Amino acid sequence: MSEREARLALSCVIEPATWRVTEAVARLGAERVWADLLRGPLQAPLSRRAREFRSEPVLEQAAAAGMRFIVPGDPEWPGRLAELEGCEPVNDLSGSPLGLWLRGGGDLTELTDRSVAIVGSRACTPYGETIAGEIAAELGKAGFVTVSGGAFGIDAAAHRGCLASRSATVSVLASGLDRPYPVAHRALFDRVAEDGVLVTEFAPGEHPTRSRFLGRNRLIAALAPATIVVEAGARSGARNTVTWANCLNRVVAAVPGSVHSAQSYTPHRLIRAAEAVLVTGAEEVLELLGPLGRRAARAPVESRPTDALDPEQLRVFEAVPARGGMSAGELSLRSGVPLGSCLGILDALAEQGFLEQDERWNWRLPRRRRAPTA
Amino acid sequence: MSEREARLALSCVIEPATWRVTEAVARLGAERVWADLLRGPLQAPLSRRAREFRSEPVLEQAAAAGMRFIVPGDPEWPGRLAELEGCEPVNDLSGSPLGLWLRGGGDLTELTDRSVAIVGSRACTPYGETIAGEIAAELGKAGFVTVSGGAFGIDAAAHRGCLASRSATVSVLASGLDRPYPVAHRALFDRVAEDGVLVTEFAPGEHPTRSRFLGRNRLIAALAPATIVVEAGARSGARNTVTWANCLNRVVAAVPGSVHSAQSYTPHRLIRAAEAVLVTGAEEVLELLGPLGRRAARAPVESRPTDALDPEQLRVFEAVPARGGMSAGELSLRSGVPLGSCLGILDALAEQGFLEQDERWNWRLPRRRRAPTA
Repeated sequence: MSEREARLALSCVIEPATWRVTEAVARLGAERVWADLLRGPLQAPLSRRAREFRSEPVLEQAAAAGMRFIVPGDPEWPGRLAELEGCEPVNDLSGSPLGLWLRGGGDLTELTDRSVAIVGSRACTPYGETIAGEIAAELGKAGFVTVSGGAFGIDAAAHRGCLASRSATVSVLASGLDRPYPVAHRALFDRVAEDGVLVTEFAPGEHPTRSRFLGRNRLIAALAPATIVVEAGARSGARNTVTWANCLNRVVAAVPGSVHSAQSYTPHRLIRAAEAVLVTGAEEVLELLGPLGRRAARAPVESRPTDALDPEQLRVFEAVPARGGMSAGELSLRSGVPLGSCLGILDALAEQGFLEQDERWNWRLPRRRRAPTA
Repeated sequence: MSEREARLALSCVIEPATWRVTEAVARLGAERVWADLLRGPLQAPLSRRAREFRSEPVLEQAAAAGMRFIVPGDPEWPGRLAELEGCEPVNDLSGSPLGLWLRGGGDLTELTDRSVAIVGSRACTPYGETIAGEIAAELGKAGFVTVSGGAFGIDAAAHRGCLASRSATVSVLASGLDRPYPVAHRALFDRVAEDGVLVTEFAPGEHPTRSRFLGRNRLIAALAPATIVVEAGARSGARNTVTWANCLNRVVAAVPGSVHSAQSYTPHRLIRAAEAVLVTGAEEVLELLGPLGRRAARAPVESRPTDALDPEQLRVFEAVPARGGMSAGELSLRSGVPLGSCLGILDALAEQGFLEQDERWNWRLPRRRRAPTA
């Protein structure tokens, strides 16, 4: 059995985020840990589960749900996750994941390379929801992907803000990706999976538990170079994410709010304790991300790729819908540019990377949208 | 002419807060500076003003308005002001004041010994006004006097909150105390003067100017061991007060608010730049003030002086109005305690320092309220 197969098997049979498992795999390798498990006492429930485990049905289940499994060393495995090895366990959890289940059109390493985790409470206020969406959208425009947990409240607002700026986004879940939790976000998760990616440590079919939410927080903190807490009450899980982010020496920031709002309790506490830097918007987040962030922050003001387009090209480009495709005829009508010119403009825009054609020859924005170099 | 007389004369003839004047007086003494001024060229307007100056009408004017003039070395002169000598000039202002004009029943040194400056913008929001009042009231209950500038907005809310907790308060003004500015706060200033004190560097009859407001900010920062910015826009004078407070190594704190509020711009900026510590309420301010502050903060929760009173005594004590006096007969009616018992209780309360009798033998709360040791 290969290391990859052993990691897959372990991640299905054992609670994968627990410290004893990740520590043993880091020290001995997954093959050895798996072999030891198989040789365990007949009656030990874990060893019995290991002996009964067959990977085929899991892989079929995963394939049916469009999921893939990656392990350290794969091109899509984010190098940042290795830094988790240096963290002390929190709530008996720690370590780099055994493997990750992914679903979606994005590449996890590419997406998280320039990313920001936005976290906060489920029971947030409209204020927090607005700011999470605004920051995610502004970061998206500056080329930064939002990583969050897909939960109600701040998480969902952040994912939606990111999507609204036509940026891909990453949801890290505490359940199997074939049953993403919460169920009410199924449509949101489908949109995330279009250009972004859904991520989890947990095997197909698995349900979230309290401990798995905490393990998930550790992955959110590890995947992004910065974590922003928008709103969080005294007992919010966001506090836990920040503990991980600080252990990982990530940039940690928090958004202030009314001193009378229970949902600003944790942000204020973190700022006061110098565990987080106060930020009032995306521009200040980008400043914290260093020269790379600052350049990106200024770029939309100084120049946009579309600045190089002439007015007629711009009218055609802006007629293309945010999602889905549209025929050249429809685009000619929408933009008011005659079909003859429109066809030439569409070709030119495709050549510059602004547009692409789908299988039915409709024009659409590129699936994995990169800022075209105009 | 004595040093005191020279300081008084200088403070009437020269713009007293300007760096050149305070620096010369600190180096040469006021007598020498005044003598030099008198010996100045015949045509020099300042020297002519000096030669024409007579102190008697000023002192009469001051006495009529209930004002007194203090100089360094007087018991009421706060030692903290000397620390201004170490500050670089800001806007051409610096240095310890030549003298201070005071009006009010309080002792400036006693009042500012345990004090907090609360500052902010005139054009504040209801949020800022509420918090300024809350913090000042809580600090007042913990035995801390609020120092502020008597302006509209945050200043007035802070003074009022302090007064509401039956604590004295200190207003530092940018005009002569016989014409306190703003005029609309005349009633407020009269209340401040009851148990607290109005303070200024500027001679009777003087009007406020932009430069004098800035000079006033320097005194606010210097008089209190801590300065709290509640709300301040990008160009608020509170920023100037903080510059002084930081130069003086005072505790500086700021209250967060909505990131969408222009009035929270400066507090957020200060916190972000580590020029101020984030505070969400009086308890956190008291923590910053150190062991003394913390003890005071806990005191109201752990025990109050009135805890030692029996229920009947408490009913009589609580029947005494917050302001003004009341006869024993009225207090008996209000408290429901028969007059015979009531008289004995009133005497006992007076003995313990909870009450006093005014000139018409009415019972009232002590003018300078100290926490009685029950």
